[in-house]
Amino acid sequence: MLNSHQSCNIGFVGLGVMGKSLALNLADHGYKVAGFDLDPNKVKDVLDTEQSERRSDISEARIIGCKTLKEMLPKLTTPRVIVLLVPAGEPVDIICRQLIESGLEADDIVVDCGNSQWTDTIRRESEYRGKLKFFGTAVSGGEVGARFGPSLMPGGDADSWKYLQPMWEAVSAKVAEDGSQIIKNIPGDPVTEGEPCTTYLGPNGAGHYVKMVHNGIEYADMQLICEAYHLLRSLLGYEPEEIGKIFEKWNQGELNSYLVEITADILQQYDHATGAPLVDMILDSAGQKGTGRWTSISATQMGVPAGIISESVYARALSTLTQERENASSRLIGDIELGDIDPTAVEEAIKNALYCAKICAYAQGFQIMRAAQEEYNWQFNFSDIAKIWRGGCIIRASFLQKIAIAFTENPNLENLLLADYFADALEHKQKGLRQAVILAAQSGIPTPSFFSALAYFDGYRSEILPANLLQAQRDYFGAHTYERVDAEAGEKFHTFWQEENRPERKV
Amino acid sequence: MLNSHQSCNIGFVGLGVMGKSLALNLADHGYKVAGFDLDPNKVKDVLDTEQSERRSDISEARIIGCKTLKEMLPKLTTPRVIVLLVPAGEPVDIICRQLIESGLEADDIVVDCGNSQWTDTIRRESEYRGKLKFFGTAVSGGEVGARFGPSLMPGGDADSWKYLQPMWEAVSAKVAEDGSQIIKNIPGDPVTEGEPCTTYLGPNGAGHYVKMVHNGIEYADMQLICEAYHLLRSLLGYEPEEIGKIFEKWNQGELNSYLVEITADILQQYDHATGAPLVDMILDSAGQKGTGRWTSISATQMGVPAGIISESVYARALSTLTQERENASSRLIGDIELGDIDPTAVEEAIKNALYCAKICAYAQGFQIMRAAQEEYNWQFNFSDIAKIWRGGCIIRASFLQKIAIAFTENPNLENLLLADYFADALEHKQKGLRQAVILAAQSGIPTPSFFSALAYFDGYRSEILPANLLQAQRDYFGAHTYERVDAEAGEKFHTFWQEENRPERKV
Repeated sequence: MLNSHQSCNIGFVGLGVMGKSLALNLADHGYKVAGFDLDPNKVKDVLDTEQSERRSDISEARIIGCKTLKEMLPKLTTPRVIVLLVPAGEPVDIICRQLIESGLEADDIVVDCGNSQWTDTIRRESEYRGKLKFFGTAVSGGEVGARFGPSLMPGGDADSWKYLQPMWEAVSAKVAEDGSQIIKNIPGDPVTEGEPCTTYLGPNGAGHYVKMVHNGIEYADMQLICEAYHLLRSLLGYEPEEIGKIFEKWNQGELNSYLVEITADILQQYDHATGAPLVDMILDSAGQKGTGRWTSISATQMGVPAGIISESVYARALSTLTQERENASSRLIGDIELGDIDPTAVEEAIKNALYCAKICAYAQGFQIMRAAQEEYNWQFNFSDIAKIWRGGCIIRASFLQKIAIAFTENPNLENLLLADYFADALEHKQKGLRQAVILAAQSGIPTPSFFSALAYFDGYRSEILPANLLQAQRDYFGAHTYERVDAEAGEKFHTFWQEENRPERKV
Repeated sequence: MLNSHQSCNIGFVGLGVMGKSLALNLADHGYKVAGFDLDPNKVKDVLDTEQSERRSDISEARIIGCKTLKEMLPKLTTPRVIVLLVPAGEPVDIICRQLIESGLEADDIVVDCGNSQWTDTIRRESEYRGKLKFFGTAVSGGEVGARFGPSLMPGGDADSWKYLQPMWEAVSAKVAEDGSQIIKNIPGDPVTEGEPCTTYLGPNGAGHYVKMVHNGIEYADMQLICEAYHLLRSLLGYEPEEIGKIFEKWNQGELNSYLVEITADILQQYDHATGAPLVDMILDSAGQKGTGRWTSISATQMGVPAGIISESVYARALSTLTQERENASSRLIGDIELGDIDPTAVEEAIKNALYCAKICAYAQGFQIMRAAQEEYNWQFNFSDIAKIWRGGCIIRASFLQKIAIAFTENPNLENLLLADYFADALEHKQKGLRQAVILAAQSGIPTPSFFSALAYFDGYRSEILPANLLQAQRDYFGAHTYERVDAEAGEKFHTFWQEENRPERKV
């Protein structure tokens, strides 16, 4: 598939960690890449790495460097495909304008592979129409993923997809039939068999939106794992290494996932300097870069319950108040009282709690995407989305194979909780979640996301909620009206609460 | 204070329910009002009402009607003060432009008393500078409040405040020394003694922002009351009327508030048509108009934990899925198991749960405002904010007197939870909140806001959170670095997790 030395398949603007890794990945799959970066050292670095990693049977450089955008354009086959891996925001627009000035044409394709907000991608697709084809592709998997197989979430002009599809399918992560990722991570020897973790998701911002929800789910998944760890440690007094072994065991079963795997690994590490468990030397202050917040905000704007994701975002925010929490810990004393504890039973309960809460978190994520496709005129195939998350990305897990099956069996599934596989799991394991919530409440260990998961599960399966009282309050103080259980849907009534005999009238 | 018949103190644009009520309130306090509405029937209606309610010792009309804005301007003393009570959004800007065209001058004051988003008020104050003085005043208390004494939350140009202050102080709700509202609700006989529920909150959007947070807290307050009701009903099998009497009793103590008062009233009402408790005839689907969502979104954007408010917003959203919940209720069966119940103890626990959760919800609301004053360059006096919420508005409660005292004693209080009064209350009553959470988890009754409150309390008072593990995960898959507990704050470290011996380096 190698072309003559002047004809490159794809151009890269931005050769930082992600750009470099993805360019090398494309090169490994036989594509010839033209690369540009404002920093000439980054161009040199990717060329040097390419050379040092190149297999002996390949004589020609697979990546060539360009000093300017103008120099890059003639080196590309047409329609040109140019990947941007530059910081989200203004830089994307700056490069687009420079590309247009440098001679890019209306049929050429600019692919934004950065962490852009979906609303920007929607705007850009329309703003640049007629000047270039703007396409979004969100990349998940970090440096290693980009280098050896990420999950790629493309959205944009459908015609452009046919030029990108072979490349994206080649470089993306691959999964075996059982849904597990096929991993080699060897330069020059890419994975070529298996199902690729990429699929066309829809026009304009669809790809970036799906990636954002992926990250929102990731926030919840990580927080739930941390709460399980916190309970195991505080309730049972286990050391990190023991808990790491428990996670290792859990990783063999239905909780199998990349995040559980690395948790098991982390917890079994010791600090070189002090000999203490490494996790104990790390400050309990968690950063965040925005995608979790965006997911929570988008859900709230659309009116989709997303408590687990939002509580996970808030948990990170609260964690950063280290000094405030230290002050508060001596002033606000817990009135706690824990009964007898059976470690085996508690361990089992927490495992089931984690599994049930995880189902609820993913259910919320898919409900957000369901609402978004109405809001933004997309048509998601939820089975495909689950499939491309099985490999390459941070939340990859055998669990996603089950979700893919659920949505394949019923593409119009109202809520993941109602899929037979998950409904049955919740039926048999919910006791663990209840037990974890009870233990947390008794012991004063904060588990906001476990709490929110149980409230979501019990709320969703409640035929009657106390919102009748709430709506009565709204009608009382604000004349907001209410519907009656014995009247047609949509018929509004108002009670004149301040008048004699409280007359009710249809309004 | 009555002026000659051609000289009005204040003009009103928009004479719907709120405009009419506030205009009549001003008239009762001796101000002469010029009123305009696009709908001449609304003008006629307010003139008729004014005439019919006018005391016999007053001979002259206190409100005069205008057919156009041009006709209104010369009737006003200068600088002119014109109140807009028109729908939020574009109409506000339309009227401003029309007022400018009609001859409004740079020193004249336009007061937006609608439900505008604070960001619009910020924009408008700057956009109209030099053409008119744009001022925001959020009004809480609904129709009755506007008529007989609302809580008024003004923000805008400080010079304009001196013209508005006497009028706003006159018409706002009044509280007695014990913090309770002085209520008469008699046309022509306004309350004139007591402390007024209004104070200047700061420039541009400060007033509308504070009102938005008021509403966010209101969402939480209402949801918590509903959860308490739901628990009492489901756990103890009490009928609405009995629960109404319990709320009536609670309203005599520290839970005393307008919302508890109307809840007690609502629950003791019966439906005329069926004889059933009225609340049981009301559909459990709660509406929302946006301010709760905005509060949640603003908190999330600023990184302020606001789980109780967000869960309350989500609870309303979930309640609207009546059909989905009905389907789910037969598929997702609760695996519940409730031990022996002592009704007296449970009632006491739920009461204490409501009180503790309420403290946490208000704490979140004040933390949001604390962050917002940094974000938008305001300087809030939190004691004053608590004071102006003691009367007129929906969340009015003796509770707010305690908050006012807490912030008077320590204006820089880091968090309401740490004020002695509330810290002591939480120490002695938290067991009730724990008990309520445990009972809800055991019985399958969804109490998302109680859950979130306990998680917030336990999280805030946790010296150690499992965010160390979370940050380790972030460093593992994304090289996001971490701080060490034994290093200087701000020093960043990275472990090379994939390498032999996992070297750690300062970065």
